[in-house]
Amino acid sequence: MAPSDKSTNGADQRESGRAQVLGVIRKVGQVARIDIAQEIGVSPATVTALTSELLAAGLIEEIAPEAVPGKPTGRGRPRVALRLRGAAHLIAGIKVAHSSLSVALVDFQGKTLHEHTAPMPDPKLNAQALVQIIRDTLIKALAGIDKTLSDLSGVGLGVAGVIDAPNGFVHWSPTLTQRNVQLRNMLQQAIDLPIFIDNDANLVAKAEQLFGEGRGVKDFIVVTVEHGVGMGIVIDGQIYRGTRGCGAEFGHTKVHLDGALCRCGQRGCLEAYVADYALLREAQLAVPPPGEGVETQLAQLSMAAKAGDSTAQSIFDRAGRMFALGLANIVNIFDPKLIILSGERMQFDYLYADQVIADMKSMVVQVDSPPPEVRIHKWGDLMWARGAAAYGIEGVTDLAVRAMSNA
Amino acid sequence: MAPSDKSTNGADQRESGRAQVLGVIRKVGQVARIDIAQEIGVSPATVTALTSELLAAGLIEEIAPEAVPGKPTGRGRPRVALRLRGAAHLIAGIKVAHSSLSVALVDFQGKTLHEHTAPMPDPKLNAQALVQIIRDTLIKALAGIDKTLSDLSGVGLGVAGVIDAPNGFVHWSPTLTQRNVQLRNMLQQAIDLPIFIDNDANLVAKAEQLFGEGRGVKDFIVVTVEHGVGMGIVIDGQIYRGTRGCGAEFGHTKVHLDGALCRCGQRGCLEAYVADYALLREAQLAVPPPGEGVETQLAQLSMAAKAGDSTAQSIFDRAGRMFALGLANIVNIFDPKLIILSGERMQFDYLYADQVIADMKSMVVQVDSPPPEVRIHKWGDLMWARGAAAYGIEGVTDLAVRAMSNA
Repeated sequence: MAPSDKSTNGADQRESGRAQVLGVIRKVGQVARIDIAQEIGVSPATVTALTSELLAAGLIEEIAPEAVPGKPTGRGRPRVALRLRGAAHLIAGIKVAHSSLSVALVDFQGKTLHEHTAPMPDPKLNAQALVQIIRDTLIKALAGIDKTLSDLSGVGLGVAGVIDAPNGFVHWSPTLTQRNVQLRNMLQQAIDLPIFIDNDANLVAKAEQLFGEGRGVKDFIVVTVEHGVGMGIVIDGQIYRGTRGCGAEFGHTKVHLDGALCRCGQRGCLEAYVADYALLREAQLAVPPPGEGVETQLAQLSMAAKAGDSTAQSIFDRAGRMFALGLANIVNIFDPKLIILSGERMQFDYLYADQVIADMKSMVVQVDSPPPEVRIHKWGDLMWARGAAAYGIEGVTDLAVRAMSNA
Repeated sequence: MAPSDKSTNGADQRESGRAQVLGVIRKVGQVARIDIAQEIGVSPATVTALTSELLAAGLIEEIAPEAVPGKPTGRGRPRVALRLRGAAHLIAGIKVAHSSLSVALVDFQGKTLHEHTAPMPDPKLNAQALVQIIRDTLIKALAGIDKTLSDLSGVGLGVAGVIDAPNGFVHWSPTLTQRNVQLRNMLQQAIDLPIFIDNDANLVAKAEQLFGEGRGVKDFIVVTVEHGVGMGIVIDGQIYRGTRGCGAEFGHTKVHLDGALCRCGQRGCLEAYVADYALLREAQLAVPPPGEGVETQLAQLSMAAKAGDSTAQSIFDRAGRMFALGLANIVNIFDPKLIILSGERMQFDYLYADQVIADMKSMVVQVDSPPPEVRIHKWGDLMWARGAAAYGIEGVTDLAVRAMSNA
């Protein structure tokens, strides 16, 4: 675009200018005005104007120039660097899992200030009970750093299931007894704060992008293995969600026509072959007979397989091969640069086996350039909560930038 | 961005300004300067500067203002409209199919000037022979409007297979006897013109976007059924290609672990259940015994099914259900707004049956908002060639805009 535009949408442009400046500062950590100007391709004068506004709003702060040894600072004023002002906002990230709720409290810089985990009373709750336990757990987490709900600027929340993120609407979730829940509105009534909800695997993708294996990678896919199988797709640096928020439903892609019954009610879903209940359904024929509780039963099945029990081995083998088939389909469709397998539970280790990755590679379209890299990254619910917090920071940043235009 | 930027990358910005102006004119057809300014959010003065350059370069032309009945033209100068200058460039689009080569010759406005089809001597050629027949057919097509190769500005070419479009490199194609062919370079040596190569299904997607069912739809997926099964993915208005150009490989997604043998050498690919050879492989057990030639055999099998032969019916039934499963996986992964099933051959009609669409809908994740719309759009190779021509126009436009900066 030519340099001297008087646009009809100047307010929008100032907003996007502020957002771009904040984005650069967030990416780099601390950066001089002149480098911001270079990075986003505008004049130093414009950057000075935008950063003045952001300083006045308290979103960023100046830090004294550090003397670089052996590098003269040049004539004139020393280059003052800018960084985000951590104290500007306190943000919570929450991950709702099968048996627990994890909270990460972060500042505006993204620094983790406190973490807290509480048990879920039941893996499946009605919406009112879920809202209540989220509120209670949030208050307890805040008390750990002598804060209350009124100190928070916003909450990012990750929930399993089919989530329409822009509308904060839950089509369906294994955590909720009801379908079609306006979860964001309900939470906002209970907590009176901006709430940002997304599918939990999308927030793992966000966490990988910001703090993990996805840093600096434009296109990648995260596959999460917990009780279900989730997926987050990053295309051109953005989470891909689909038209209804129903995209990236990896666990319910079909790997067998008229196949095994899935907990979703359909047949042949990937989950119906690789999830814990799928393994235990078959384990009823395996030796030794299963013990008490899902985790114990899975551990026993896994030990039996490792000890050479051929029935137990064949259960894990089939699950691993079905998982490889599902992954190969993702590669054939997306051809991503990188696939990150993200999970933490030991009982799903068989899905990360070298044989599974080799099977996957044998089922993708064969060309003479290497298939996508597969990285295995095990981390816990608290990292998922950090992803939720990062999503919350994004939402709070958007609101703050918009509020400056209305001020 | 703020209004008064003096950017460090002014040349890039002028290029992108020119490209934006051309984009608006191409989209609208004919448009006044003031409306261009509104559409792209820059000042009328900037649009005047950019359009002067484009007029001088001969890419656009002014047309006399049309009096709108009952609408006064207002004071001052009447609003002169701009449109693309069709004569600015002559561009060819070529689609290489199983048994024929189709050429569309279009002007810079995209208007089709001439079409020509020639038989392929063999469905599989070596690269040198393919280059030769493309060149010969192009010359014959041009002769139809008394033109020669030297009148052309560029060629868009669609080929089946795994194509690295930005590099004009063919990893693999059912049309070529060799793998890893630098097809663009070879063609450029033979034809000495800018050549733009892409996977043929991507070019159908481009044709749907510009002239077909995809007009005005940001995210959609095109599935093409010919001898193989292809896919084109449009996300946010752009063709999605993947890291190695190996994305959107729908035909080789796996629908059955250790399933039927595919012509690619792997097992359980969708193609191995729905392509013509897959149907005929099973038809050997069907009554009546198959006749001569693939198309005749398929027609007989189809007639037998319609006449009530249960073996023939079960062959089409299974293929249709596998196709539905594959489509459902695409929906579960992408959640697109629209799926366009694009093809023309009658023998594949069973894949467009209501039952297939119903099966697909029963296998997608069930939420209480409607699944993607499915539209069936049958058109011939000449429309594919028009898609290739549209891709050629894009490439020629980029080159023309860049050439103006170097002038």
